[in-house]
Amino acid sequence: CKAHKVAVLPGDGIGPEIMKAALKVLTAAGKKEGQTFEFTEALIGGAAIDATGSPLPKETLDVCKASDAVLLAAIGGYKWDTLPAEQRPERGLLGLRAGLNAFANLRPAIVQKQLADSSPLKKEIVEGVDILIVRELVGGIYFGQPRGFGINDKGERIGFNTDVYSESEVERIARVAFEAAQKRGKRLCSVEKSNVLEVSQLWKEVVIRVGKDYPDVELSHMYIDNAAMQLLRNPRYFDVVVTGNIFGDILSDEASMLAGSLGMLPSASISGEGPGIYEPVHGSAPDIAGQDIANPMAMVMSAAMMCRYDLNIPKVADRLEAAVNAALDSGLRTKDLWKEGTTLVKCSELGDKLVELV
Amino acid sequence: CKAHKVAVLPGDGIGPEIMKAALKVLTAAGKKEGQTFEFTEALIGGAAIDATGSPLPKETLDVCKASDAVLLAAIGGYKWDTLPAEQRPERGLLGLRAGLNAFANLRPAIVQKQLADSSPLKKEIVEGVDILIVRELVGGIYFGQPRGFGINDKGERIGFNTDVYSESEVERIARVAFEAAQKRGKRLCSVEKSNVLEVSQLWKEVVIRVGKDYPDVELSHMYIDNAAMQLLRNPRYFDVVVTGNIFGDILSDEASMLAGSLGMLPSASISGEGPGIYEPVHGSAPDIAGQDIANPMAMVMSAAMMCRYDLNIPKVADRLEAAVNAALDSGLRTKDLWKEGTTLVKCSELGDKLVELV
Ligand SMILES: CC(C)[C@H](C(=O)O)[C@@H](O)C(=O)O
Ligand SMILES: CC(C)[C@H](C(=O)O)[C@@H](O)C(=O)O
Repeated sequence: CKAHKVAVLPGDGIGPEIMKAALKVLTAAGKKEGQTFEFTEALIGGAAIDATGSPLPKETLDVCKASDAVLLAAIGGYKWDTLPAEQRPERGLLGLRAGLNAFANLRPAIVQKQLADSSPLKKEIVEGVDILIVRELVGGIYFGQPRGFGINDKGERIGFNTDVYSESEVERIARVAFEAAQKRGKRLCSVEKSNVLEVSQLWKEVVIRVGKDYPDVELSHMYIDNAAMQLLRNPRYFDVVVTGNIFGDILSDEASMLAGSLGMLPSASISGEGPGIYEPVHGSAPDIAGQDIANPMAMVMSAAMMCRYDLNIPKVADRLEAAVNAALDSGLRTKDLWKEGTTLVKCSELGDKLVELV
Repeated sequence: CKAHKVAVLPGDGIGPEIMKAALKVLTAAGKKEGQTFEFTEALIGGAAIDATGSPLPKETLDVCKASDAVLLAAIGGYKWDTLPAEQRPERGLLGLRAGLNAFANLRPAIVQKQLADSSPLKKEIVEGVDILIVRELVGGIYFGQPRGFGINDKGERIGFNTDVYSESEVERIARVAFEAAQKRGKRLCSVEKSNVLEVSQLWKEVVIRVGKDYPDVELSHMYIDNAAMQLLRNPRYFDVVVTGNIFGDILSDEASMLAGSLGMLPSASISGEGPGIYEPVHGSAPDIAGQDIANPMAMVMSAAMMCRYDLNIPKVADRLEAAVNAALDSGLRTKDLWKEGTTLVKCSELGDKLVELV
């Protein structure tokens, strides 16, 4: 059986630590199922800027394109915050998403029962929450043209961006969302701001049209401001949410707080053809980098999503998820989640424990 | 002493009920301080569409412009949801904001100690929260040109909007926010997405420049996705927040949930010159309209903001706020806030009680 080719992008901050732990766990879980991996490491973000001057060197994109899937840890840090925007670590991430046409970003916001207490929300509100946010990732205001700086008719400087979606862009993300909903609770909520924006009116119209092909999925519509509220008021209302790039950015980060810690949440960014990108929702946390205290669970869960969606080895995914669950059950917690009555472990220790548990 | 000229726009849904209650309370509070009001009612939103075909008839804008301040209840409802976007009630609101150049939307998110239990967030997280969100209201993607529908080079339909800010637009809202911060906790957080958007880069640059004039205010910067998270994780971090139109829409609605009920939260939209618009943050709630169960407190608190900011009669504002506080203390609650151990009152009953309490 051939090795699965995985491009490994540790990136910045806590990236390398959590990646190291996750690769160990992934390798161990694969072994149990007779699966092997060929990891090819490449540079991205600040690490790539330091080494090559570019946040996404051409070799990195080539390595990713030649792989079955991409595992990415985290990018960015104070060190590069003063660079002009177009040279910053984030551009490497945006370039990678666009370069792989990874248009569908799947962000589960699941409240693990062992962690319901860690949420800033009341337990009775967040218990049982299991939301999948499907965010369009390579269009909208992140990539829309024209963009830039200019001078208005009063002679002042302006900055501007274009939020734009075409019918086919909305259609393909809507199909991903409807299909995901079919496999889950069969409810899809499309989030936009069609009472104000034309781009949202087109979005809504296309989602309604595509919905005709999925009569078994109950479709609802919500304005983004209301969605930001309902996510707190009644999060169990949501099953699958589909939304554009910037609204998805905001909503998925908000939703991640329901789960208490960002350290638990994975994401998948898929194109339906080439390799997808699998990365934790959290950032590079430069303030705690190098201290071996980061939580590697979101990284491990991202590897699980990779096994399920791209590599098609769901049994390995099951093992990874079960190991994380067992570790939580046995009370192991990294610093972000530690509470009286649980056992504090370091990032590497948790990695080793998960290796035992897979 | 001359009567204060107030344009009264009851609008749709629960609008007329809460307006009626609030005007009674305002009149009573004014009387105690020797202040009188001249109320001129005008149509807006769905009510205006039904009567005149336009969500903002010219007479309404004229009445507003000729007043010292505008008191607006709420607009919109299912009935008008199927109209084309440009004919809907919301357009009346947007037109009024633009017509009065009400560029600074002030949305306090205050957790009243009597209501800390009503929040979906844990009491220890929200207790003592007192945030003022300063949202730019007549620019950004809500009004940016070009906007509309078109055909792309593949022959497909697209929808598009432009998010744009000029230096002077950012400067004037930044000054409002810095000045508000000077009168409060002296901390200002500017929220944008400058790691991705040029419009945000200009925003940040101008806010930093303006900040030099307010050395006593501590300025910080946060990306919108992170802000949506921190608002839940550590809401007491925030004192004053300044942000653009769409981010402010989302963030202020999210923040409103900290307070438990939208029924408590007022807002002011001011231009610095002409009359400002004072309205509750909540919507027209068509599902409960006409039942006399709506919460008039946000409307009363909006009248209080009007007295403070536009009419310059802070003693009347104090009376209104004190009355609301006393009503809460004595356990009076409308249906949205009712809990075991409190006293359920109707909208009109609460209005009468507040009249006694001012
Ligand atoms: C780092 C940044 C460009 C990125 C985004 O806005 O997409 C991040 O916030 C995310 O959500 O993955
Ligand atoms: C009704 C709508 C146009 C409006 C807005 O988006 O500004 C509302 O949500 C608000 O926040 O006042």
